[in-house]
Amino acid sequence: MGFESIQLRRSPSGKIVQKAFVHPELDADEVAIKITHSGLCYTDVHYSTTDMVLGHEDIGIIHSVGSNVSSVKPGDRVGWGYPNKTCQRCDLCLRGEDNFCADKQFFGEADFDQGSLETITMHKEQWLFKVPEGLSSEDAAPLMCGGSTVWTPLVNHVKPYHRVGIVGISGLGHLAIQFASKMGADVVVFSASESKRVEALQLGANEFYATKGVADYTKLGVTKPIDRLIISSSAKVDLSLFYPFLSKQAMITPLSIGEGDLTVPYGPTVLQGMQVSGSIIALRFMQSKALEFAARNGIHVVVERFSMTLEGANAALAKLKEGKMRYRAVLFKD
Amino acid sequence: MGFESIQLRRSPSGKIVQKAFVHPELDADEVAIKITHSGLCYTDVHYSTTDMVLGHEDIGIIHSVGSNVSSVKPGDRVGWGYPNKTCQRCDLCLRGEDNFCADKQFFGEADFDQGSLETITMHKEQWLFKVPEGLSSEDAAPLMCGGSTVWTPLVNHVKPYHRVGIVGISGLGHLAIQFASKMGADVVVFSASESKRVEALQLGANEFYATKGVADYTKLGVTKPIDRLIISSSAKVDLSLFYPFLSKQAMITPLSIGEGDLTVPYGPTVLQGMQVSGSIIALRFMQSKALEFAARNGIHVVVERFSMTLEGANAALAKLKEGKMRYRAVLFKD
Repeated sequence: MGFESIQLRRSPSGKIVQKAFVHPELDADEVAIKITHSGLCYTDVHYSTTDMVLGHEDIGIIHSVGSNVSSVKPGDRVGWGYPNKTCQRCDLCLRGEDNFCADKQFFGEADFDQGSLETITMHKEQWLFKVPEGLSSEDAAPLMCGGSTVWTPLVNHVKPYHRVGIVGISGLGHLAIQFASKMGADVVVFSASESKRVEALQLGANEFYATKGVADYTKLGVTKPIDRLIISSSAKVDLSLFYPFLSKQAMITPLSIGEGDLTVPYGPTVLQGMQVSGSIIALRFMQSKALEFAARNGIHVVVERFSMTLEGANAALAKLKEGKMRYRAVLFKD
Repeated sequence: MGFESIQLRRSPSGKIVQKAFVHPELDADEVAIKITHSGLCYTDVHYSTTDMVLGHEDIGIIHSVGSNVSSVKPGDRVGWGYPNKTCQRCDLCLRGEDNFCADKQFFGEADFDQGSLETITMHKEQWLFKVPEGLSSEDAAPLMCGGSTVWTPLVNHVKPYHRVGIVGISGLGHLAIQFASKMGADVVVFSASESKRVEALQLGANEFYATKGVADYTKLGVTKPIDRLIISSSAKVDLSLFYPFLSKQAMITPLSIGEGDLTVPYGPTVLQGMQVSGSIIALRFMQSKALEFAARNGIHVVVERFSMTLEGANAALAKLKEGKMRYRAVLFKD
């Protein structure tokens, strides 16, 4: 029997196409979900020629459940994201860090029918989270990848007394400002132009510096050292510009992925005990905690809404590719 | 020459007496400070027969500085607290944990003229903090001991996704609620009677449970496990009552000191990987960060004001001893 769905797929030519698809019957640990909202992430732009359903910031309502499913039931509102399956046997899985599992089968890497730009999809129960009542689906969807990606290094490495520098007010950056501020940290934003100053301060930043055309960042006027630097800009950043006002033992966390190498000042990194710390998509634990924290502390994603149609998907992807999204696209079912 | 001061001292009989005193001339690393505000702590009640100046939550204005002093200048508003001198050579001092130095000379243990209930006092420069501009002296004074004592285990052990239980809305407890809430944590308060429910929620708690007359705490209706339990009550608490709704690997931090032994359920502590974690008065680092955090996040101490006179000190100490202070006494110079 299975579940009939209408998918919005990337085709190998790069075009988005609409396609009828029938998901097979549910395994015992699987759940069928009617998708209501899907965030869009720059990864959806990256997969430009893979034959796959796009979308991996997913919110939907449970339609039916397999025979062994016990934690969710039809009618529940759930979210899920990038991770989908891991080996559950390797050291990383066993110690709860399955986002680094070598045999992970994540969105874009395996099962090209797991994306969220479709009417109904299937997912294993263990990769789903109930969305807290106080959180809208629009706010919840972008937290399933972008939001929880930003949340993870903040939770892992930021203390409430830290000064946290956030480079770039992007989809990730505007959430980093809110999360860090609601953790009580002192938030300092670096953005190209003055145009986002007011918004950055409204989101919770205490200081704002416009960097466009500034060749020497010591001229920005940053007076107190910064302990944690979160790079949320998609453009590659010249880290050496920030070093003069990073604290000793500061940590730099690049969140977007650039091509080629990241250039790190050699001497100062050693002599000042600096750390560069990679951090990828969030664990399930972190995803669920990001949802709860957002609900509890009134985190709101600044969203541009598109309909979950061929036209809506094309418009959203085009705007995202141009770097003009303010700040996160959410496609929704009418 | 020295500095003439009027002290409010505890006499060996237990009475508070007013006494003229001349502090010696300043050493090169010392500072003379005109005291404007002093918090009062239950420790001041504990030292009931020691011949000493009371008060160790101190705010004042720098009057004059020794020849080697460089970080503060006359006119600066500064705070200081319980710690006064450590050996600076032992392992604990060398690794920045000098609050555990075996040779520490803290308030009540050495130099009985270091209390803050007097007109002018002397202190070593290295134990002073500038008070941030946005923080009133009334808010700052109680943070120098009580506030930073509560702040320390929260910073050390609480993550933004934790559920933090706070037992007792005392001088320490009402600050623990605010600090934990402003760190984004989920704050749950346990208080004897219903009378403080509204205030607890206003301070930032999300849940409130009245425990008076409840023999079995499973009947309180706590539905989600608590990860960190802060005991701020001065009465000794029966920890076993809380165990049914503590999470696995929960941590219990008793902040007040009781006589005799702390009784910990044996089996559950081992089997559930629980921790009981001692934590005393704060490091200088933590004291200064507590001031900054409070200024940045609008932490306000609920204060009862008394004049810094014989009459004011007696009234404040009596109220404190009766357990009726709501929630922290501040004595101030007219």
